[in-house]
This record gives sequence, structure tokens and C-alpha cells, in this order.
Amino acid sequence: MAQRDVSDSISVTTGPIVGSTKVYIDGVPVRRVNLSNGEHLDLYDTSGPYTAPNTVIDLTKGLPARPGVVRDRGTQLQRARAGEITAEMAFIAAREGLPADLVRDEVARGRAVIPANHNHPESEPMIIGKAFAVKINANIGNSAVTSSIAEEVDKMVWATRWGADTIMDLSTGRNIGETREWILRNSPVPVGTVPIYQALEKINGDPTQLSWEVYRDTVIEQCEQGVDYMTVHAGVLLRYIPLTIKRVTGIVSRGGSIMAAWMLAHHSESFLYTHFEELCGILARYDVTFSLGDGLRPGSIADANDEAQFAELRTLGELTKIAKSHGVQVMIEGPGHIPMHKIVENVRLEEELCDEAPFYTLGPLATDIAPGYDHITSAIGAAIIAQAGTAMLCYVTPKEHLGLPDRKDVKDGVIAYKIAAHAADLAKGHPRAQERDDALSKARFEFRWHDQFALSLDPDTARELHDETLPAEPAKTAHFCSMCGPKFCSMRITADIRDAMADKSREFAEHGNQIYLPLAQ
Amino acid sequence: MAQRDVSDSISVTTGPIVGSTKVYIDGVPVRRVNLSNGEHLDLYDTSGPYTAPNTVIDLTKGLPARPGVVRDRGTQLQRARAGEITAEMAFIAAREGLPADLVRDEVARGRAVIPANHNHPESEPMIIGKAFAVKINANIGNSAVTSSIAEEVDKMVWATRWGADTIMDLSTGRNIGETREWILRNSPVPVGTVPIYQALEKINGDPTQLSWEVYRDTVIEQCEQGVDYMTVHAGVLLRYIPLTIKRVTGIVSRGGSIMAAWMLAHHSESFLYTHFEELCGILARYDVTFSLGDGLRPGSIADANDEAQFAELRTLGELTKIAKSHGVQVMIEGPGHIPMHKIVENVRLEEELCDEAPFYTLGPLATDIAPGYDHITSAIGAAIIAQAGTAMLCYVTPKEHLGLPDRKDVKDGVIAYKIAAHAADLAKGHPRAQERDDALSKARFEFRWHDQFALSLDPDTARELHDETLPAEPAKTAHFCSMCGPKFCSMRITADIRDAMADKSREFAEHGNQIYLPLAQ
Repeated sequence: MAQRDVSDSISVTTGPIVGSTKVYIDGVPVRRVNLSNGEHLDLYDTSGPYTAPNTVIDLTKGLPARPGVVRDRGTQLQRARAGEITAEMAFIAAREGLPADLVRDEVARGRAVIPANHNHPESEPMIIGKAFAVKINANIGNSAVTSSIAEEVDKMVWATRWGADTIMDLSTGRNIGETREWILRNSPVPVGTVPIYQALEKINGDPTQLSWEVYRDTVIEQCEQGVDYMTVHAGVLLRYIPLTIKRVTGIVSRGGSIMAAWMLAHHSESFLYTHFEELCGILARYDVTFSLGDGLRPGSIADANDEAQFAELRTLGELTKIAKSHGVQVMIEGPGHIPMHKIVENVRLEEELCDEAPFYTLGPLATDIAPGYDHITSAIGAAIIAQAGTAMLCYVTPKEHLGLPDRKDVKDGVIAYKIAAHAADLAKGHPRAQERDDALSKARFEFRWHDQFALSLDPDTARELHDETLPAEPAKTAHFCSMCGPKFCSMRITADIRDAMADKSREFAEHGNQIYLPLAQ
Repeated sequence: MAQRDVSDSISVTTGPIVGSTKVYIDGVPVRRVNLSNGEHLDLYDTSGPYTAPNTVIDLTKGLPARPGVVRDRGTQLQRARAGEITAEMAFIAAREGLPADLVRDEVARGRAVIPANHNHPESEPMIIGKAFAVKINANIGNSAVTSSIAEEVDKMVWATRWGADTIMDLSTGRNIGETREWILRNSPVPVGTVPIYQALEKINGDPTQLSWEVYRDTVIEQCEQGVDYMTVHAGVLLRYIPLTIKRVTGIVSRGGSIMAAWMLAHHSESFLYTHFEELCGILARYDVTFSLGDGLRPGSIADANDEAQFAELRTLGELTKIAKSHGVQVMIEGPGHIPMHKIVENVRLEEELCDEAPFYTLGPLATDIAPGYDHITSAIGAAIIAQAGTAMLCYVTPKEHLGLPDRKDVKDGVIAYKIAAHAADLAKGHPRAQERDDALSKARFEFRWHDQFALSLDPDTARELHDETLPAEPAKTAHFCSMCGPKFCSMRITADIRDAMADKSREFAEHGNQIYLPLAQ
């Protein structure tokens, strides 16, 4: 990657997460939490070389490429169908703690995808599918009114530090291509885009001037650059537009509204739909994964699960079959704004219509009434939809509906979504999920404060909030906390009870049944 | 209320919420949001006189008492059984937008409670029951290591400003009685306590020195003062203690652990259990509501839904019947830490064992791994458990497990729980719930930014986040936002589409079916 004049202004966060060490086991990265009782727990790690000890990061050079990328044997889907366990699948199996056979079979079946463009070797392989840990995506990207390249690269590193499994660069402003190049070359996770944003930029923002040719060339440019998955709103058909007219919030997807405007202006079917097979041919060459966009997703509780939304989903099911017949990996995007009682229906219908292709949802927000807190309204919906089978959750930040996320918003969004994803992993019984809860709760109960912080999703914030009340270092080992104070501490009392019970047990053993009987009733 | 030397140091937040006006309709308070299109929406309002226009608050005098409190005809439960629609029930019916008959019937049936101690006439009547809007409680209170009376009164006013339906004063430090007096005299919502905290303070914090007499006198003192509901951990029996020994986090309830320590030291059954009927007699005299505490609630995912927890719940069912036979209103406290797939079982079992007495749960947290963000981990669980029938949600703040909540934490906890409660109201189909979502989404779609802020749970934060990106006043009426910028705005494009569709409709009418056919396929 050539020197660029923006490089001086970019700085990113490096160094280990407090209380953890980056370790590579057979080349697979883990965040190792070293506990004060001599034990350790290894956690899934998305942060790439940025958290490695003594790492030297040169953003102008980009991250090192992983060796052995195979370019001439087709897509992961095609190779899985042929029975091959690719290097990427083996890496993923180790990362997830699951058998490599399972990884291959789920990919072959189309129930999981491995977004790994041959031209993005900086990325560490990962998988998106309901048989695996629930993943989260963080959207970044500048717009016409805000942000710079430096800020976006910083947000990418920052989001993966806290657990983002993929990044989408949704830039719509100036320097779209250059911003993406900086992000791709330095991203340890797969990068997704919505190519129509750049296509629109090329024709100065007038959707009616779009054409298949402009779009196709943009897609090829992004494939060459290394984009791992692309949102394509090919399911928004001309005949669905009237279905949105009586909605409270019409069409809220940018891609969907752009295509709707084009179709109405030309009175023609969407060129994304009519040229879909050609698109499949392009994506297959690079092993770029389709993320079939839900251009008619509901933008409000009132519009949830309506005819427009489900009509498009049926078309996405049709396109899924076509993409798979070309050997292209596919996932399906989902909503949006959905009240809790209507969430599960989305997953069931997606699985039925789209042959269980991985579902990738934006939230959903469980209510519209909390702008400024939509990371929370949507974490509720996200946890529920992930429990029902959604494979990846696109985060929502506190700025949703109000502005573009800054660094703080990105972290707030990522943490809220790590919570939702982990809650779903627990509910689904992912074999590794509860280990972490148990280790943290044990540390909590034994007043190992440093261990509790280190095991948490955000050790910095946990420690900071603790220190607000009891800042002194001795309080980190004290057998009480500030909620009850030293006298009332329920956890200390319970420890005393255990001791007392142990004494009683000894008495019981020494004196026979009589003394202990009242406890055993 | 007498002048006290702490009064100078207390200041509380007064004045209307931005964009809203306090209005009383037949004496029932509402937050009226006046919209820029001439419409208005009236919202449930918990904030009391503090948000009224031109209000004069004198904390040393306390709030005015509501007139006509009836003290000599028993509890709301007894009067409902006798067929009476009390003044409180009529008030509540207007507040909820539901028939007064329904209020009376649900109370008579024991499926709803109206916590309204005769000695707390400053409170505005409200109801807790699954047929009504889901309520939230905010815990405040000082501990041995932190906080002052002034801070606690301020937190009480602050919590009700943002929507807390009840307050629990969980003080355990100095000046418990005086703190509670300041809170009660100035609280527009019911106040709950855990009397054993004060009882323990009286005997210098050694649980083994507790006695029925000390406890009883404390309860009477708090009844006299006006406490509306009391947490009583009478279901923790001696024989249940061994069930907690193998838990990851033992007994995490303060009240539960205190009683366990007492029982073990005396090797006797809990005096709360053995004197329960006497306790009923006391509470009935003031119409204080039982909140039967879950002293053995799980403190970690590992301990969820275990034998200890459900053994206690069965005993709470037995105590519910006894309390009701004395005419005392009852609600049941619930967990705690529960993974998503085990949440609904808690509601079903509570309803079955406790004769559908209102369920009042602490979260539950859907994972243990996010200290610092437990308002979010628990909002997920809270929304799910409320959808399943929980009537009131006890908030959890970001400080949970780490320290005592300050003013910011209180607001963060209240807003997260208003989100959870409202999401559940939507899912349950509460007749008034979706009006607010629809009004806000309509304002959003029409770029009425001020209306969007005013209709939100927290107008201040919504506006603040918007202003971070686009601070200028014209941006508040601009037909775009900072996410897409002026060119790409999907909502603007949709508006254009609607216009275009309207044109097409006219063509359709003018030219017959042919032109429009491709859209109608």
C-alpha cells in the first residue's frame, strides 16, 4: 500500500485489553485472560494484530497477508460441496471449538458462509451461521457531511478491539474508494459494503442516472479491492413499490429507496434483479458473499411484518437459489423495527423461503420511542432474533436516527451487541458460552475484583465504575463491595454460611442424624 | 414536616420535560406533548408536581396530601372484594385508559395491587398487575460507605421525572429513618422498603442478634411513616439453606443471607415465616402491600431456575394465600440472573404457585459477563419476562455489581427499563402503547425533528446527540439527516416516490389499466 498523505493523521488503539494477553494457538488468535487463582480462560478474539504484544503497526503498509490463499479452486461453497476442508475451515473450527466437518457441512449446505474475498488476505477467517457463535457487525463510514478517512480507520480498529466480527464501510461522501482501501488493508475482519452508494456517487447522486454498467463496474472495482461481502437490494421489485405507499415510514433503506426511485423514473424492473445472474458470475470469481439486502425492511413498529417486507423476502428466496447455483455464498438481511411478538416469525419465514441461508439482521428495534438509546431498544430485539436463529447481528448505536456514530458510539454499539449475541449463545447452548459467565460469577463471588474486570466485555468501564465508589486499591481485594458495605455483604454472609454448614456436616457425621434433621426435612 | 438541618443542601430538578406540558385531566396528571402539526399526545406521567408549570416545591413541607383517603374500611383488596370502586381505582382507571370495573376486578382477584399506605397521601395512585401497563421501580438509598439524604431525595425526584412508577429506599447506612421520611413526604409515587435492613441497623449489624420483636417494631414504625410496600423474605426456610451450598454464587439477596445467617446461628425456623400471620395483621391495618422477597434468587446464570429458587417460590405461594386471607395485597419478587431460554418458566411457575399475584422481577440479567452494562443485559431479560406477564420490573443500573448508582446511573437505569416495559406493552397489545411509536415514527418520517425529540423517552439526550453532528437550528427542520446527507436521504426519496406514485395513480385513472399494469402484477 502506497504512502498517502492522510497517513500522518491516522492513529489507532493498540496494546492488549487490560487483564488479557493475546496468544496464538496453532496460528489461531485468542484473548487469554490470566486469573489470579492461576487458571486462565481463552476467549474468541476479533482484534487482530493490534492487541498483540510488541506489535508494530504500519498503517501505510497494511496488515500482513495470511499465507496460502487459494484463488483457483472456486468459492468456499464450491470447495465444501466437493468435500474439501479448506485452510479457512480448519482455522474456523479451531476458533469456534467445533469440528472441522461441521464447518464444511454447514457451508456446503448453505447454512453458513465464510466471507473471504481472495483479495483480502489480511482478514482472519470467520464463519456466519446458526450452528456457530452469533456474530456482530459494526457499520462505519463517512457521509457527505461528516468524518474523514483517519476517523474511519480508527473506528474500524476500535470496533474490532471490542468484538466486531465484521465491519461494513457505508461511506457515502467523498473519497469512498480511498477510505475503503485504507480499511481493507488494515482490517483483520471481513469487510462488507453496499456498492450502490459508490455507484450513485459516480453519477453525482441522481438515482435516475444509475445504470447496470455503472453498478457492475463499481462491483468489479470493489471485488478487486478485496471487499468480502456486498449488500445487494435485488429483491426490491417494481411491483412491490405500491405496497409501501400506505406505510407510516415508507422505504427507509437507502439502497431500497434509490432503486425504487430508479425503477419509477424508468418504469422498468430493477437492473439488480434483471442482471442478477451476471452479478453472480462476478462475485463467484473472487468468492465475494452476497448479503441480499432488505430494501423494504420496516422503519417503524407500525410497518413490521407487512406485505411489502414479506413480498421482498420471497424474492430473496428465489435469488438465493440462483446465487447458490452459481456457487456464490449467500446471507439474507433482515429488519429493522419489529415488536417482540412479531420477531420469531421473521426467522421462521426467512429459513423457509431462503433455504436456511444465514440471517443477518439490523437489530431489530423493539420500539420506536427511544432515539438516543437505540443500541438498547435494538439489543432487546437482537437477542431475541439471535436466539431464534439469526447468525449475525448488525449493531445499532445510540446515534441511530440522529447522526453518525463517533468512537464512543461505536464502542457502545459493539458492547450492546456482544451482550445480545452472547445472551443468545447461552440460550442456544453454544458449548463455550457459559464458561465465561461461570468464570466471571465465580470471581465475583470470591471477591476477585481484578479477575471479574478482566473477564468482562469491557474491563476498562467495569473498573472505572467500581473506582467511582471505592477507588482505593485495597477495595479491589476487599471482601465486600460498596452496595451493602462491609457489615451487610450478602456474599460474605454466604461464605460464612458455607463454613457453618460445613461445621454442621461434621457434627452430623459425628452424632448421627438427630442434630441435622431439621435441615434435611 | 419539620424543618431539618439538611434541607439547605437539597435541590431537586423541577420544570417541564422539554416539548411537554403537564396537564391534569379531572385531577389525573398527564405529560402532554404538543406537536408542531397542531396535534397532541397525552402520555402517562409519574413525575408528580415537580414538572407542573409554576410549581413551588418546599421540600421541608412535603407534597400536598391527596384528599379523601379512607382509613377505616380496610385495604383496597377488601374493598374491591366488597364490590367498591374506590377513589384510587377511579383515578387509576383514568390514568391507564381502562375501565374502572377492570381495575376493581383485577384487585379483587389478587392479580393486581394498589400500593397505597393510608399514611402516604402524597402519592398518586397507581396499579401493578399484568392487565395494565408494565411498571418499573427504581432503587435508591445510601449505604454505610456512600451517599447522603440530599442525594437520595434528588435521585427520587430524578427517577420519577424519567418514569419510575415506584421507588424503593434501600438505605442501609446512617439515618435510615430520616432519609425515608424525606423521601416519603416528597414522593409522588409509592415507596417500598426492605425493613430488615433497618432492623439490622438497630442491633448494630449482627444478624444473629435479630429477633421478631426488633423486626416487628421496625415494620410498625415504617407502616406509621407511610411505606407503601415492603419486601419480606419469609420464604427462605431453614431447610432450603443446604440447597444453596453447591451454587456458584450462593445466596446473593441481602435479606435472604441475613435470614439464613440468623437461622443457622439459632438453628430455628425463620421468624418471618413463623410470625407471618401477625405480620399480615399489621400490614392490613395500613394497607401496606407485601412484596414477598426471593431471598434465594440466582445470582448467576449457573444458578438459574435451581431447586433452591423454586423451593422458595412454592413457599411464597403458600404465604400468598395466607396474606390474602387477611385481606393484605401481595406481589411476588422474582430473579435475578436467568438465561433467555429459562425466563418464561419463571412466570408460568409463579402464576401457578402464587395464584397469579403480580410478579415483580429484578431484570433478569440474560448474561453475567458485562459488568458496567447490566442495565442492558437486564433490559433484555426484563423485556422478555414482562412480555410473559411480569407486572413490574425493578431496574438495574450500569453500576450493578460495582457500586451504588449516582444521578446519571439512575437515569440510565430508568430509561433502559422504560424501553423494556414499553416493548412489552407493545408485544402485549396494551391499547395505548403503539400510539406513541406511531406518532414518533410519523414525526421522524416527516422530518419534524422537534416533535421526534419531544415524543421520545429522553428528549434532552435525543436532541443532544442530534446536535453533535448537525447543531444548527435549520437542521431541525431540514428534510435530511446526517446519516445519509442531503443527496441520499431515503426518507426524502420515499416522499418523492409517493408523489410519483400519486402521479401514476392519476394516469391510471385517466388511461385505464394498461400503463399501470407492470406495477400491479
